[in-house]
Amino acid sequence: MASDLAAPDVKYNAAELTEFLDKAFPQMHALGRVYFIDEVLPGEAIVRLEAGELQLRPGGTVSGPSLMGLVDYAAYVVLLGNMGLHALAVTTNININFLRKAEAGNMIATCRILKGGKRLVVMDCEIVREGSDDLIAHATATYSIPPTSFKG
Amino acid sequence: MASDLAAPDVKYNAAELTEFLDKAFPQMHALGRVYFIDEVLPGEAIVRLEAGELQLRPGGTVSGPSLMGLVDYAAYVVLLGNMGLHALAVTTNININFLRKAEAGNMIATCRILKGGKRLVVMDCEIVREGSDDLIAHATATYSIPPTSFKG
Amino acid sequence: MASDLAAPDVKYNAAELTEFLDKAFPQMHALGRVYFIDEVLPGEAIVRLEAGELQLRPGGTVSGPSLMGLVDYAAYVVLLGNMGLHALAVTTNININFLRKAEAGNMIATCRILKGGKRLVVMDCEIVREGSDDLIAHATATYSIPPTSFKG
Amino acid sequence: MASDLAAPDVKYNAAELTEFLDKAFPQMHALGRVYFIDEVLPGEAIVRLEAGELQLRPGGTVSGPSLMGLVDYAAYVVLLGNMGLHALAVTTNININFLRKAEAGNMIATCRILKGGKRLVVMDCEIVREGSDDLIAHATATYSIPPTSFKG
Repeated sequence: MASDLAAPDVKYNAAELTEFLDKAFPQMHALGRVYFIDEVLPGEAIVRLEAGELQLRPGGTVSGPSLMGLVDYAAYVVLLGNMGLHALAVTTNININFLRKAEAGNMIATCRILKGGKRLVVMDCEIVREGSDDLIAHATATYSIPPTSFKG
Repeated sequence: MASDLAAPDVKYNAAELTEFLDKAFPQMHALGRVYFIDEVLPGEAIVRLEAGELQLRPGGTVSGPSLMGLVDYAAYVVLLGNMGLHALAVTTNININFLRKAEAGNMIATCRILKGGKRLVVMDCEIVREGSDDLIAHATATYSIPPTSFKG
Repeated sequence: MASDLAAPDVKYNAAELTEFLDKAFPQMHALGRVYFIDEVLPGEAIVRLEAGELQLRPGGTVSGPSLMGLVDYAAYVVLLGNMGLHALAVTTNININFLRKAEAGNMIATCRILKGGKRLVVMDCEIVREGSDDLIAHATATYSIPPTSFKG
Repeated sequence: MASDLAAPDVKYNAAELTEFLDKAFPQMHALGRVYFIDEVLPGEAIVRLEAGELQLRPGGTVSGPSLMGLVDYAAYVVLLGNMGLHALAVTTNININFLRKAEAGNMIATCRILKGGKRLVVMDCEIVREGSDDLIAHATATYSIPPTSFKG
């Protein structure tokens, strides 16, 4: 769950980023919140997808696009939490391998920064189903930071 | 727009696939249809995303996850239309490069089969904004076909 | 084959780039030349790998790393030919799908610029065996151009 | 360095795989050995590239294609060591992010199996320069195992 405790080694903690992102991207939760920031750690973030009906496919599988959305969001969270509020950072590449069927349940993405450059930030993310260690998906994501985007 | 004309060189045309996919994945259109199959051609398919409020980000940009969903759907369409109703085919990899800002408007994905194997089908997709030739995104997608999945 | 004819729509033609690259990267041909620039066209380049013993695997298959080297080289050629001699441009990402067995023979890579930005240049490359249209491999490549790299 | 000690939790250890691969792919070391298998562990392998003149670029940087070759080889090693001698396994996809300049020196690839399926094996690899923790490159690799390839 989101921790309100001070996290001295990151720039913004889970509660602060949740507030920031809710204001910046209100559409994401227009139908009810499904993405939750659990933790922001040095170089890492843990984000949860609580898949509801709209994220499921017949047979009770979490849809691929929902998992890709989780990667995109979680990668952004670890970037912002560790490098500051680059609101204009944009995704330039996502590569995702779908490894196992995503049975209905909470999906936990753990993303870490592989390289935090001034212009490009590269991250990888592992997604598991809550309560299991088996990887559901693995992804790498690259964000580009425009020269003028720095806000904090 | 979707053509009902017979397309002798594909296994299923746009109208047939729309009907099949609506039944197989009713959740996709639970909030109103945003993905439309325009054409199924030999080795190729054209699929449209009519981005609505839920697919937009502040400033009127079509969201990255919406474009990834478009790739996933369009790649599935070209596979089914050309290779038969492999209902159990699953996405194993998507790699997407986001090339330009996706200003609000219809997004047109043109996907083609690079290799249609018995076990792996690899496709690439180009996404443009309707009325422009500039690439918004480029993706490759791989689907795996289980041994028992063939239905038509 | 390499054309010496003026190519008014590109910045450098095949002969000019061959000369530039031979000087910049002499190690590439230390064991004999295997990569040849066939053509530099607007937004596109055609580069050939003449696989010799060192590039082959048992059974007469062109090795995967040789094909990846071809992608890296050909993507650089189309960038330089169309955007100028960014000698410090560096590869940031290559994604390659190996589609068919690469039987011994000349491998022809056709690379085109998907987006030629000031900071990131994204290309895709198709590799066929000379004399066939079947794709051996498909790749995307991203180069980053440092602020100070521009030379011509 | 390569360990000859029995590794009860893997199918083949570093010495056994070195012998197998030297016979299967003699061309790889035709100009002198540059790839060395350091360790084969459960679900993991560590492989070293001792870059020589042929692998270097001007300025003393290890070339991108050499790093891609390292990924390809190391991914194959972890697959064989843990899953048996699938001599016919073929690379279907490699995605590599180049993160930092690869200053001359030994490159250490640590690859692990993300999913070891009957048909597809997905791995990721991290490459560092020996003596540093900074990532030089990160890659994912997918191998396909043909139905008839199993040898051990």
